[in-house]
Amino acid sequence: ARTHRIAVIPGDGIGKETTPEGLRVLDAAARRFGFDLKLTHYDWSCETYVKTGRMMPEDGLDQLKDSDSVFLGAVGWPGVPDHVSLWGLLIPIRRGFDQYVSLRPCKLLPGVATPLANRTPAEIDFYVVRENTEGEYSSVGGRMFPGTDREFVSQQSILTRTGTDRIIKYAFELAMKRPRKKVTSATKSNGITFTMPYWDERFEAMAKNYPEVKTDQFHIDILCAHFVQHPDWFDVVVGSNLFGDILSDLGPAVAGSIGVAASANINPEKAFPSMFEPVHGSAPDIAGRFIANPIGQIWSGAMMLDHLGEHEAAAAITTAIEKLLAEGGPRTRDLGGQSGTVEVGKAIADAV
Amino acid sequence: ARTHRIAVIPGDGIGKETTPEGLRVLDAAARRFGFDLKLTHYDWSCETYVKTGRMMPEDGLDQLKDSDSVFLGAVGWPGVPDHVSLWGLLIPIRRGFDQYVSLRPCKLLPGVATPLANRTPAEIDFYVVRENTEGEYSSVGGRMFPGTDREFVSQQSILTRTGTDRIIKYAFELAMKRPRKKVTSATKSNGITFTMPYWDERFEAMAKNYPEVKTDQFHIDILCAHFVQHPDWFDVVVGSNLFGDILSDLGPAVAGSIGVAASANINPEKAFPSMFEPVHGSAPDIAGRFIANPIGQIWSGAMMLDHLGEHEAAAAITTAIEKLLAEGGPRTRDLGGQSGTVEVGKAIADAV
Ligand SMILES: CC(C)[C@H](C(=O)O)[C@@H](O)C(=O)O
Ligand SMILES: CC(C)[C@H](C(=O)O)[C@@H](O)C(=O)O
Repeated sequence: ARTHRIAVIPGDGIGKETTPEGLRVLDAAARRFGFDLKLTHYDWSCETYVKTGRMMPEDGLDQLKDSDSVFLGAVGWPGVPDHVSLWGLLIPIRRGFDQYVSLRPCKLLPGVATPLANRTPAEIDFYVVRENTEGEYSSVGGRMFPGTDREFVSQQSILTRTGTDRIIKYAFELAMKRPRKKVTSATKSNGITFTMPYWDERFEAMAKNYPEVKTDQFHIDILCAHFVQHPDWFDVVVGSNLFGDILSDLGPAVAGSIGVAASANINPEKAFPSMFEPVHGSAPDIAGRFIANPIGQIWSGAMMLDHLGEHEAAAAITTAIEKLLAEGGPRTRDLGGQSGTVEVGKAIADAV
Repeated sequence: ARTHRIAVIPGDGIGKETTPEGLRVLDAAARRFGFDLKLTHYDWSCETYVKTGRMMPEDGLDQLKDSDSVFLGAVGWPGVPDHVSLWGLLIPIRRGFDQYVSLRPCKLLPGVATPLANRTPAEIDFYVVRENTEGEYSSVGGRMFPGTDREFVSQQSILTRTGTDRIIKYAFELAMKRPRKKVTSATKSNGITFTMPYWDERFEAMAKNYPEVKTDQFHIDILCAHFVQHPDWFDVVVGSNLFGDILSDLGPAVAGSIGVAASANINPEKAFPSMFEPVHGSAPDIAGRFIANPIGQIWSGAMMLDHLGEHEAAAAITTAIEKLLAEGGPRTRDLGGQSGTVEVGKAIADAV
């Protein structure tokens, strides 16, 4: 049987509660579709940091690098500053494994209530393709004149040709596989006048290679407004690291619940393992009560199987999720239900 | 009688159609409340650029500096790149006159349909306070290795102590005047790790001076989601130049229509004239047809009168707007009506 080696990092907070449900469903899919998952568990988290002063061991990336994929819960916990926890674990994996595509579906699932008035599932169904290694999340910056009136901080945003072209190309390739074949570019070249005009220039150049694909572009401010007012306009939306981050939280919010939103951090060339994680964070406010929605995690598992070539199994999981929601199966509080994390996980595993 | 000197710059596109309606209503208010407006018109626009190579004359700021306020329509037109038109007119005024506060009300007006389900006017009523001179809109950046595979662009985001403290202070002072007394800080210190942790640090320091004011903070990604899911959480929201820009388009979108949204670019010390403009742009797609909504412009006029000390007149205008909308008076297409720009302007002027 085919074997996929999966590194599992539950991380912090509700990540520890949703990851087991993700694994439960993956296991059901493996049994039904005849492949093996070889799991290796890593307890790297803010607890590790408090004990050892590091979020992961110094050779952490080395330990992960022979796995086929990383399956992550959530990272972050009060008391450990985000720029320590995330930059000690999540960001080094994204960057060290050159997972330059963050792919995030925004889909209104049948049976899920959207905060928008009068929107149907057919009207909200698009992907956000986010650059995941450079841009506004740079490691170049600093502080001058600390503690004085002249104090200032500075941080560079960096767009390389390599980084810009490959993410835009990925968006066009994705659009080519979809019926509407449309790519929307998120920009802000009217205000951020060194980096963003360059983004526009590379977008225009890449578009020439895909004459069948329709394109448009909006500044990020009005684009956010359009997500709310016209979610039906979008098919594939591509943005820089920060803009993609914003749009891929706003998109799922418009589609009803961040608790169901999934994401993939992909190295398309498969030179390194890719990583799959829900969009939600560790949610300290509800952690420990097993009431978190596991669907974001489970859906991320489906994206992982797709990446590993198990397309049928991936489809079986997303179908099971859609059926559960459409048919009024157990649901967590964020979706207006009363069920717990485990109950929802079990129901989806059974359906698979 | 009191006299206020107003520099009027209609600018481009629908700016030329909405500005006269703004002036019509201001004139009605002046007659009713007994003050004079001394108007000076400037035709600075993209047309000027095409003719002269400049958006405004070299001594443009000098020509404006003795006015009490600037009343602006919109800037930008196809064929003239945004980073030319805006950086040749709008941004130099904001920055040259140290209009470091951009103040933007987000208010669901009675009779306006919001894209959100089941939201009432009392639930959407907050201000976005945007830093308006530095941050992500910096003039430090450039391109290296042009035309090669090593090409990259870089742009610094700069937060000074002066710039950061004064905008945060303004937000707290505003909150002190409002019944809920709450300030929300927009950050992204988990991803943008040089500038944004500094923003958090200064926010925390300033909050200590206002023990009566409740505070919270969200990363910009989830904050955008909360604008859609929980607009009722917000009272005063403060953000950097870019985050404030995004939130002040998303806020009005959530509140129904960007066509009614107003904004003030304020130098609170009155060392320089402040500038008042609608949030919408020049809208080339509908320009020339006199169908644009003039309410954003008219409401900006009310904010201008408030700044000039004409509080009663300002209140009369906002009351007239609310009454027109609540009572089903004439409305433009963006609000589901059939009326033109002039008809709406006249109705509001009559009511004043
Ligand atoms: C036109 C553009 C430069 C401007 C900005 O981003 O400041 C606009 O979006 C605004 O919000 O006033
Ligand atoms: C936790 C944070 C650093 C991260 C990001 O901004 O990339 C998160 O918001 C995400 O979207 O995965």
